[in-house]
Amino acid sequence: MTKRIDFQTDPSRYRHWRVEYDGQVAHLYMDVDEKGGLFEGYELKLNSYDLGVDIELADVVQRMRFEHPEVGAVVLRSGKPNVFCAGANIRMLGGAAHSHKVNFCKFTNETRNAFEAAGAESGQHYIAAVKGACAGGGYELALACDHIMLTDDGSTTVALPEVPLLAVLPGTGGLTRVTDKRKVRRDLADVFCSIEEGVKGKRAVDWRLVDEIVPNSKFDERVKARAVEFAARQSGKAGAKGIALPPISRSFGEDGSVAYSLVEVQIEREKGLATVAIAGPDGVAPALLDELHAQGAQTWMLRLARELDDAILHLRLNELELGVIVFKSQGDPALVAAHERLLLDNQGNDWLSREILLYWKRVLKRIDLTSRSLVALIENGSCFAGFLAEILFACDRSYMMEGAFEGDNRPAATMTLTEGNFGPFPMSNALTRLETRFLGEPEAVETARGHVGEALEAEEARDLGLVTFAFDDVDWEDEVRIFLEERASFSPDAMTGMEANLRFPGPETMETRIFGRLTAWQNWIFQRPNAVGEAGALQRYGTGTRGEFDMRRV
Amino acid sequence: MTKRIDFQTDPSRYRHWRVEYDGQVAHLYMDVDEKGGLFEGYELKLNSYDLGVDIELADVVQRMRFEHPEVGAVVLRSGKPNVFCAGANIRMLGGAAHSHKVNFCKFTNETRNAFEAAGAESGQHYIAAVKGACAGGGYELALACDHIMLTDDGSTTVALPEVPLLAVLPGTGGLTRVTDKRKVRRDLADVFCSIEEGVKGKRAVDWRLVDEIVPNSKFDERVKARAVEFAARQSGKAGAKGIALPPISRSFGEDGSVAYSLVEVQIEREKGLATVAIAGPDGVAPALLDELHAQGAQTWMLRLARELDDAILHLRLNELELGVIVFKSQGDPALVAAHERLLLDNQGNDWLSREILLYWKRVLKRIDLTSRSLVALIENGSCFAGFLAEILFACDRSYMMEGAFEGDNRPAATMTLTEGNFGPFPMSNALTRLETRFLGEPEAVETARGHVGEALEAEEARDLGLVTFAFDDVDWEDEVRIFLEERASFSPDAMTGMEANLRFPGPETMETRIFGRLTAWQNWIFQRPNAVGEAGALQRYGTGTRGEFDMRRV
Repeated sequence: MTKRIDFQTDPSRYRHWRVEYDGQVAHLYMDVDEKGGLFEGYELKLNSYDLGVDIELADVVQRMRFEHPEVGAVVLRSGKPNVFCAGANIRMLGGAAHSHKVNFCKFTNETRNAFEAAGAESGQHYIAAVKGACAGGGYELALACDHIMLTDDGSTTVALPEVPLLAVLPGTGGLTRVTDKRKVRRDLADVFCSIEEGVKGKRAVDWRLVDEIVPNSKFDERVKARAVEFAARQSGKAGAKGIALPPISRSFGEDGSVAYSLVEVQIEREKGLATVAIAGPDGVAPALLDELHAQGAQTWMLRLARELDDAILHLRLNELELGVIVFKSQGDPALVAAHERLLLDNQGNDWLSREILLYWKRVLKRIDLTSRSLVALIENGSCFAGFLAEILFACDRSYMMEGAFEGDNRPAATMTLTEGNFGPFPMSNALTRLETRFLGEPEAVETARGHVGEALEAEEARDLGLVTFAFDDVDWEDEVRIFLEERASFSPDAMTGMEANLRFPGPETMETRIFGRLTAWQNWIFQRPNAVGEAGALQRYGTGTRGEFDMRRV
Repeated sequence: MTKRIDFQTDPSRYRHWRVEYDGQVAHLYMDVDEKGGLFEGYELKLNSYDLGVDIELADVVQRMRFEHPEVGAVVLRSGKPNVFCAGANIRMLGGAAHSHKVNFCKFTNETRNAFEAAGAESGQHYIAAVKGACAGGGYELALACDHIMLTDDGSTTVALPEVPLLAVLPGTGGLTRVTDKRKVRRDLADVFCSIEEGVKGKRAVDWRLVDEIVPNSKFDERVKARAVEFAARQSGKAGAKGIALPPISRSFGEDGSVAYSLVEVQIEREKGLATVAIAGPDGVAPALLDELHAQGAQTWMLRLARELDDAILHLRLNELELGVIVFKSQGDPALVAAHERLLLDNQGNDWLSREILLYWKRVLKRIDLTSRSLVALIENGSCFAGFLAEILFACDRSYMMEGAFEGDNRPAATMTLTEGNFGPFPMSNALTRLETRFLGEPEAVETARGHVGEALEAEEARDLGLVTFAFDDVDWEDEVRIFLEERASFSPDAMTGMEANLRFPGPETMETRIFGRLTAWQNWIFQRPNAVGEAGALQRYGTGTRGEFDMRRV
């Protein structure tokens, strides 16, 4: 699996999904091309999916929000006659490296969360219209929707057969959404997750597994009515005109570097290091909303979000051995704040302003959840203001230049807080990054707020607790170098586990439980011979022979 | 490691701990006998510990609550000159089977939680008086105390060196208590957990790692004053007279069965099954508190708690291949309720009543956290009332006999709710088991409450959602047998992961985060070659050669 996985696509290239727009209702058909697997060695039968299928789905969800803001209901259906979706492709999972499996699951989880966010934040409600077998990852797709409709045709079931069939967990949020979103009684959940054949009809409603069952003859009609009903909640955006999301500008260097229009990814392979350099605005903020809409995908904050999102995903899936990501920026922090200001001021009355901010919320969460050591270097000439300062607080640590640096005539290193640091970009634990940072000293959040708009230099930023370390010209280079060398020498597994625990203190949400608890157990199981060994259930699947298990419990 | 691990001990047998009582202050010295390891192949140098050391500690904490209720402050100190505690013994960990490592960590976590509970529930506050190196599990011991005092002698540090030194996590609550109890700023936590040598002096206080530093010359005096201060908060129990905890009655059969006075553990090895049968009260409840105190450890509820606790621990550590635990009971539910009633009525004014209930809270949590499939069979003649009914709700599923059974003249199967099911025994998620069960239908909790005191037969119990299945004479035997056979055939790893997710829906607490999130990541790392492989850091520790790492991130 050494080919480069590309997270960029568009409808003209879809092989697995089809979208039809009908006013405020979008019809989304899953119709997976068996021969369209991302890698060799498996066929995507029965609407099973691999990462390639999910990349297209993520693109659908993303485009819906920017290109079709008028949509208020998305009906998710199968394009195949007798199956809704059979879940993640087992042969693909059986053949994939541990690191690919884990990153695949993380991306699919993020995409499922994006469904739910679309409903909650933008009134784009996903409705699963389930006809035909809906198993494993297929039911997890449905679970991420706001409403699940099940045909009562005597054979259609929902099922989570992973445990009895494959000796792994329903790990794309399945277990967590069953208990925490649908609130299925825990003993019934135990029964449901233990039976291969699943649950159908009235029992599926009684057990809270689906929202309604519909006689097969009335299914299409009822689905249509339900879609109209959901869409009507969102009538305010009926006339909204979307903006197009054309391909992003991107080129790959021979050394693995990537150059976007505003983001540069440099690779130092022998150091296990990727540096992500962000360029500030290349112009003043749009003065009016009309100008913002006219700029569309080219407006600085949206362009940067798309490029940075792609860069992070590229590093996650294609550059597995780079354990440390360093974030830098260069630009005018006042311009950054001005661009953000326009959106913050208009988020209540302009869908595009709101969507760009919400996209940043997702991008920043993607950074939080990236299992690499994240380090910010706040150098002279930096523009970490507002939402870009959030990157500092997403990092495991930050280093800031202090005082004059010989031969460096860039403006002194600063960071600038804005109102953007106090609400619009919560982490998945539902706190802002500053609230998370100052869990032990909540008053420090208010103190920091008193400095909104100031370009804070190193000493002040350190005193406010906003950076980890500040070093002057004498120490900077050595301190940063020694730290990066040391970090790169640690066991990547220990780093992953440590960061997953330290980054999310405080309250838990369904999201943090999916990424923290469910994922960790799944990763453990993905290492255990009972699942992935030669005689394990995942390897034996489809051979007609059951897995052999070491019966020792832990 | 096939010798039977015994969780019963008493001060006359301690090899590693020493307790001195001085009125309301207890002085607890950790002075580990190097040669006193539970297994061969390692020496417990530098106050490092293995399970045997922790079993003694758990005994200390437990006895303190029953035998010395007058104690209000426990000063935890090292009995060795230059080291506080070096943490879990690395050679022991390196040589232990995965299942032992995981169960060892779980038990030590439960013991650390017991410290905290003693302070919060019974005003027995643990104070860590740290002189000498306090590293890894040593610092985790201190973290579980209510107050950490550090001598400022220029060399004494606190440290969590697991990640840089061993490529594993500080998994006995360390990471979680750093972020969630002590609320260390997350970037400082990142720094702290990355440096082998630890942190000392003022920085340790500034970073919230300890509560106070004290000049070395004044250390003993200050510790003494602090102990008196903590003890004074608890003056109400100054004159309380403890009860003795003599050895429990227990004998092992050749087939592995265990007979206690009130608990019988039967083993069906070929079925992977252990059955825990509980006997109801052998007499009426004490009429008066004097009688309760006179009965002391022999009083039914306390005797049963001690025996059941021992049985669970025995099954966890000594019977690793029994994947299913079946709970049964026989007795008079009205007597059960009467025994519980006395304690519930007096918990506000009688320390012993309160301590017995609090012990049941811990025993029930221990059941929740036991990673075996837990099944309740509510047969004719059962006495699942009040706190014993909590066992039903702790189980993954329950089966109840319905209607007449041929040749069975025991009273019809019933369960009885009491006020005990609505508050005094919360799970580690801080909800009652009924609140957890009915997360999706909170009104069902109130409905159930309307039936307190009624002996509910199968139909009613099922309608109230209190049992999973009820079967009559025709189906009972087959249904139970088929389920138990199927359950025993599943991968134990998948079961562990599934149960860890389904049992704890809803809110999270520090405890659920330790057992759910931290433990799962640690278990994953404990499987990874970077830690436990031949060239892994845990195996290489002490050889002078660093671990070799596969640098791929997940």
